Amino acid sequence: MPYTAPLKDIRFCLEHVARTRGLADTPLFAEATPETVDAVLVEMGKLATETMAPLQRPGDAGCALADGIVKTPEGYKAGYQALAEGGWMGLAAEPELGGMGLPLTVQTAVNEMQASACLSLSLNPLMTQGSIEAFTAHASPELQERFLGKMISGEWNGTMNLTEPQAGSDVGALKTKAEPEGDGYRITGQKIYISWGDHDMTDNIVHLVLARLPDAPSGSKGISLFVVPKFLDDGSENGVKTVSLEHKLGLHGSPTCVLAYENAKGWLVGEENRGLACMFTMMNNARLGVGVQGLGTAEAAQQHALAYVTDRVQGKALTPADAPKTGAIIDHPDVRRMMMEMKARTEAARAICYDTAKALDMARAAPDEDRAKWAARGAFLTPLAKAYGTYTGMEVSELGVQAHGGMGFIEETGAAQYYRDVRVTAIYEGTNGIQAADLVGRKLSMDGGETARSILSEAEAEIASAQTPMTRNLAAVHEAAEDATQWMLAQNDMAERLAGSNAYLMVMSTLHAATLLHRGLRAAEAHMADDPDFYLAKIAIASYYLAHIAPEALGYAISAKLGSSLHYALTPEQMAV
Amino acid sequence: MPYTAPLKDIRFCLEHVARTRGLADTPLFAEATPETVDAVLVEMGKLATETMAPLQRPGDAGCALADGIVKTPEGYKAGYQALAEGGWMGLAAEPELGGMGLPLTVQTAVNEMQASACLSLSLNPLMTQGSIEAFTAHASPELQERFLGKMISGEWNGTMNLTEPQAGSDVGALKTKAEPEGDGYRITGQKIYISWGDHDMTDNIVHLVLARLPDAPSGSKGISLFVVPKFLDDGSENGVKTVSLEHKLGLHGSPTCVLAYENAKGWLVGEENRGLACMFTMMNNARLGVGVQGLGTAEAAQQHALAYVTDRVQGKALTPADAPKTGAIIDHPDVRRMMMEMKARTEAARAICYDTAKALDMARAAPDEDRAKWAARGAFLTPLAKAYGTYTGMEVSELGVQAHGGMGFIEETGAAQYYRDVRVTAIYEGTNGIQAADLVGRKLSMDGGETARSILSEAEAEIASAQTPMTRNLAAVHEAAEDATQWMLAQNDMAERLAGSNAYLMVMSTLHAATLLHRGLRAAEAHMADDPDFYLAKIAIASYYLAHIAPEALGYAISAKLGSSLHYALTPEQMAV
Repeated sequence: MPYTAPLKDIRFCLEHVARTRGLADTPLFAEATPETVDAVLVEMGKLATETMAPLQRPGDAGCALADGIVKTPEGYKAGYQALAEGGWMGLAAEPELGGMGLPLTVQTAVNEMQASACLSLSLNPLMTQGSIEAFTAHASPELQERFLGKMISGEWNGTMNLTEPQAGSDVGALKTKAEPEGDGYRITGQKIYISWGDHDMTDNIVHLVLARLPDAPSGSKGISLFVVPKFLDDGSENGVKTVSLEHKLGLHGSPTCVLAYENAKGWLVGEENRGLACMFTMMNNARLGVGVQGLGTAEAAQQHALAYVTDRVQGKALTPADAPKTGAIIDHPDVRRMMMEMKARTEAARAICYDTAKALDMARAAPDEDRAKWAARGAFLTPLAKAYGTYTGMEVSELGVQAHGGMGFIEETGAAQYYRDVRVTAIYEGTNGIQAADLVGRKLSMDGGETARSILSEAEAEIASAQTPMTRNLAAVHEAAEDATQWMLAQNDMAERLAGSNAYLMVMSTLHAATLLHRGLRAAEAHMADDPDFYLAKIAIASYYLAHIAPEALGYAISAKLGSSLHYALTPEQMAV
Repeated sequence: MPYTAPLKDIRFCLEHVARTRGLADTPLFAEATPETVDAVLVEMGKLATETMAPLQRPGDAGCALADGIVKTPEGYKAGYQALAEGGWMGLAAEPELGGMGLPLTVQTAVNEMQASACLSLSLNPLMTQGSIEAFTAHASPELQERFLGKMISGEWNGTMNLTEPQAGSDVGALKTKAEPEGDGYRITGQKIYISWGDHDMTDNIVHLVLARLPDAPSGSKGISLFVVPKFLDDGSENGVKTVSLEHKLGLHGSPTCVLAYENAKGWLVGEENRGLACMFTMMNNARLGVGVQGLGTAEAAQQHALAYVTDRVQGKALTPADAPKTGAIIDHPDVRRMMMEMKARTEAARAICYDTAKALDMARAAPDEDRAKWAARGAFLTPLAKAYGTYTGMEVSELGVQAHGGMGFIEETGAAQYYRDVRVTAIYEGTNGIQAADLVGRKLSMDGGETARSILSEAEAEIASAQTPMTRNLAAVHEAAEDATQWMLAQNDMAERLAGSNAYLMVMSTLHAATLLHRGLRAAEAHMADDPDFYLAKIAIASYYLAHIAPEALGYAISAKLGSSLHYALTPEQMAV
């Protein structure tokens, strides 16, 4: 599908919304000068447009499993090689290990473009990025030596093996076994939903597998992490078999495997029984990465729909007298509404995702005394980025189908593929319900609500900065979010918080997006003279979000504060027919 | 897929929410006694559960076009025959023509069950119902004699042929030609998106085709309606060729055809150049029918998800101390939230659809002096039923996918099929944007806002009837709807209304659903002693809607009143990258 990297929008978001310029002033990211970052973005934009975007539609034909090997769609291998050879797998990896050491913020912008261009293929580097992080943080020097360089170079891929049929959101229920043998372990068990669990694009695949040691404690405290390569050093097979591929709603280009481990040789990563903590290292950034998949899909679906509605002629539009007229269906007020909504929601998701990435970067790069604060901010924002980013992807791609009218329901159009592909992002890497639970549970409790209050304060500072109708819109959302936060913090019974968790997540996401877009709006006003066409557009989109979309938070805030009483008013039998 | 007809919920909605009992007191529907209606519902419930529901999953394999004939999925022909032989095609058709003459209200409940059980197959009788209506209202006695009986008996099917590649929402742009010849006309042109345009389930297919006579005025005033059978009386082919089938996102069991008419023999239905008016006869009720498809899908998706979450065990739920516990994931507060939301949204859609059907029935059955008022109400509520019903189907099936976690993305589960199938309902029979335009344009203007005000008054009467927290929730929505309606009526520039049309449709739909559910809540309280388990459930579900969902209208009301200024703040070039 045609896709143009929105470089100006991305630069604007980095510069004026997430305000990431300061990263280059830290010792850790001194290399990430604006010039370097921009060169990276331009290069990725080119690759996304020229190499990856043409793979989006062919990838929908899916993968095939034959003779135990997964065959990827036509063109994927070449597309992957372009990514690997361009050094894109190790963008954020440490330089001494062969990476470029760029901030997660830059990786996030790069991931957005990859997701827009071809979501299925982009999931592969995203998984490998997570593996690289986990290896860097937890693997012994020997294991790093053996596996890390080849993952960073893209010669080998990394996967995450958590889920088993009885152990999904409840990872602690897993049963895969690890028996000590020689310098390592023998792994036996079955894993499901393994994204890119097998394929024909790399020489080897490095599986990170959660399993139980003999006599390990039950539940999540008895889980250890192992690295299990598909092929051993001598090239022999290592007892990892692809049993089947899932037949999915979307993301057909990305093989979702059932993997059987039979006495497969593995090595321990990190400490015994601390596997879940190791896995969370990679899952946390992967959660942001999945939110960015939602963002990327939203951007692509918006571009795709815009192309259609500026081309398709149908009926005579009733437009306001002074409105620009094109003769195409974009003139119709409700089509306009859809286009503005798609663009505004996309920019809101971008703001949250990039701002989350910046916090996670600063948690590593800031002066020691500031790191905990940034880490807390990153931890608080991650569930917002994951859930709001993916909800945005769903909502915007849904509008993309609608904007196409009857054509939207026809697969050849491609609008439906965005709608299908993005659907899983609200589910994997922790369902959005799990994100909401994380927000009202761990993240709201970790510091007695201090980080939540800092998000509210940030909105207050924005509100104090201007006195426009848009500022008043932000103030209304802030008031609702303030109430909802106070209510949440006053609940000692966690079930009461959880009952309103999804609604509260929507309130805080909307507030934070509104704050960030208001900040961007002010920056656009200040820079207007430099590029009036562009900055006027930024103001209009931010205003659309603040005026038309942000008020959604008012309804959510009411729901967030109601607690669980109505949730449990019925028995399941009373709910059934 | 397993499906149980929710007969108690349907009866409750007919009796206490839409209050349809009075229909049997009218001369037109004197036969529709509660006993007869109930027997019909029970019979349909059985057929839906036993005969249609098993066709839902196999139908997803789709239809095939071979040798010019569409082959329907395994089992569809037998399923269709059961519907035809049971007399279900002519349920609402006039008795003197072979129908049962039952109210549209009963037809609506029947359609809901069919849609829940197998949406693809149910679209076939829905199309034929529309054809029967158009024939009854507009065709000459000779044409009625020739075609109507066989459509009512189900021996033949009816289709609607409006769309051409350049003429979708703008039907007036169509180009198909009709040349007079002998006692009829020769029709030539291409039609697209013809649902059930060809198939192997009946001996003949009766196409209703919009076309232009020679020298007809341009645009929508030069369109005439013709009946064009697939086969002529002597059994010979009539120049109607199935060119191709669309490859669609969903609804695979329902063949969507491109039909080529080449000198096909046709006969005029109604007057020359009045074809659009004739077609609207059938489209109006078809719009309600499509809203009911959304409702039916919502009900089925809710039942399907409930079965999963009451069976699946995963993690230990943090529930309130006094909540019922099952050990399955329905105990988790956010899963509960999803289940309550699915059920509450479904009941809201049912309330609006049944109430709309009642108004359309009363427009025919009420004493002469009352008919115009009922007709206006039916006309006003139809776009709400279509759009809110289908948005509900989308939203509830989306929650159905989410409630399944990873399994929701796997096609074999069936949750994704509901999500895919229902997506077209927001598009066909007039996109939901067209419904919103119809609401703020024709329907709000037809009587200077009188009908809109009567909907508001109905809410006021409910608000005056009780003083509970739920009543206050209704009052808040009413206030928002009152403001939005006043704003809309004050706009002379239709573009300003259209800019907020979708939001206004959501406000009025939510208000009316809230009013109807509040009414049902009061009835449940009054009848509590008869069946406490059931009536407590009705109260809980209505309360959930009023407390958690209805506040959505507050955000929509703000958006509805903003007009078009932000919509047109950008040129399409500024929107693009």
